[in-house]
Amino acid sequence: MTSATSDLTNDAFLGGQLTLTQPASGYRAGVDPVFLAAAAPARSGQSVLELGCGAGAASLCLGRRVAGLRMVGLEQQAIYADLAQRNALQNAIPLTIYQGDLENMPADLRQDRFDHVIMNPPYFRRDRGTSSPDGIREGALGEVTPLTAWLDHATRRLLPGGYLTLIQNAERLPEVLCAMDSRLGSIVVKPLCPRIGRAASLVIVQARKGARGAFRLAAPLVVHEGSHHTEDHEHYTPEVAAILRKGGALPL
Amino acid sequence: MTSATSDLTNDAFLGGQLTLTQPASGYRAGVDPVFLAAAAPARSGQSVLELGCGAGAASLCLGRRVAGLRMVGLEQQAIYADLAQRNALQNAIPLTIYQGDLENMPADLRQDRFDHVIMNPPYFRRDRGTSSPDGIREGALGEVTPLTAWLDHATRRLLPGGYLTLIQNAERLPEVLCAMDSRLGSIVVKPLCPRIGRAASLVIVQARKGARGAFRLAAPLVVHEGSHHTEDHEHYTPEVAAILRKGGALPL
Repeated sequence: MTSATSDLTNDAFLGGQLTLTQPASGYRAGVDPVFLAAAAPARSGQSVLELGCGAGAASLCLGRRVAGLRMVGLEQQAIYADLAQRNALQNAIPLTIYQGDLENMPADLRQDRFDHVIMNPPYFRRDRGTSSPDGIREGALGEVTPLTAWLDHATRRLLPGGYLTLIQNAERLPEVLCAMDSRLGSIVVKPLCPRIGRAASLVIVQARKGARGAFRLAAPLVVHEGSHHTEDHEHYTPEVAAILRKGGALPL
Repeated sequence: MTSATSDLTNDAFLGGQLTLTQPASGYRAGVDPVFLAAAAPARSGQSVLELGCGAGAASLCLGRRVAGLRMVGLEQQAIYADLAQRNALQNAIPLTIYQGDLENMPADLRQDRFDHVIMNPPYFRRDRGTSSPDGIREGALGEVTPLTAWLDHATRRLLPGGYLTLIQNAERLPEVLCAMDSRLGSIVVKPLCPRIGRAASLVIVQARKGARGAFRLAAPLVVHEGSHHTEDHEHYTPEVAAILRKGGALPL
């Protein structure tokens, strides 16, 4: 699945429907952006903005599942922005990449509004724990811009009725919920649990701009079969295999 | 299980280990206070305060499970405060009831601190939806005191390291989490789902005063067997039957 080209690798996603070139070290897309893409309820003809798109994994998974989207990605680090554009071309999926800062967005983006914003903000707070020795990796994994700013900028970029979908470390769910203000409603949290009966490791959080529906804590998506690790080879549950191997949707 | 005495009923809880006298109409304890009591990690010799104890269901369930607790309940409505004291005597469980307002607590309580605070605050906001025609019922089901005040008063009454455990409508989880300030940490959310694969209907939320542990979204407790209602007679899952019928604990 992975072949190295100098310090880059080519990695297959969605059972081979998508190939992404990524740095061999530093931030590398795993299953998280695939779940994020699966959860975004985008329909053909709609527009999608990904904030902090890295090498483009989430947007390109979404673009593979839903044809006819207008897709835009914003990425602060030049190496990832370049890879994202290259990955879009390589996979023949239309995706326009802007290199720029979330807090100082390119003027084109500041004047644009989208049916969907998707994002996979950094999981770790810079003021806690150890920071990565790898500066690029830290930029992607560790927080520079606070979650409140990610949510504020995401909300601003949404059209009325538009959907924000994000994936985050489950430990940060209170921060995510408390950073969502009254512009967002109909919030849904989908826990992702490694196994049945385990605490959530990740959460997908979705909200709609201007909506007023009640909060909903959905049933967890269980990632692996079995109640504990029994074999060298892990088995995904059928629901998860359909998402990761076939590019299926994840209705919340 | 229920026998009427004028406008009161006697209801069996914990498989008959506890009998509660309650009003035949108005707020009546169901399974929610039983789950709340099961989730409080109280040990013999500790102190427990229940805020808004109604007829005493949660405190008395907890007192039945754990002997040797010093238990105190606060209830605003005289009819429920009287019933709670009567239910404590009737079941021979030591529980001291104060009649009073959460926001203007009796002086004795204001000067006291507890190892545990438990509460089942009103599920519905007064500013939303229809209010109950029954004033007493509204006092118990509909919100007069905002959730933020419940959480603030609960936190003040805790000893350092003490546990706050509450049960609430799952729709209000964001409000609960956002009302918890930095005095509380190591927050755990336990979703209660009516069936496997369903969204949570209730959440138990637990936090510890002065703790700094990460937030945890636990695996749901599934209440009923089966993925949909198939029979007239509902079956509880074994975990839930052990709590409701045998007075077992619910470790989070």
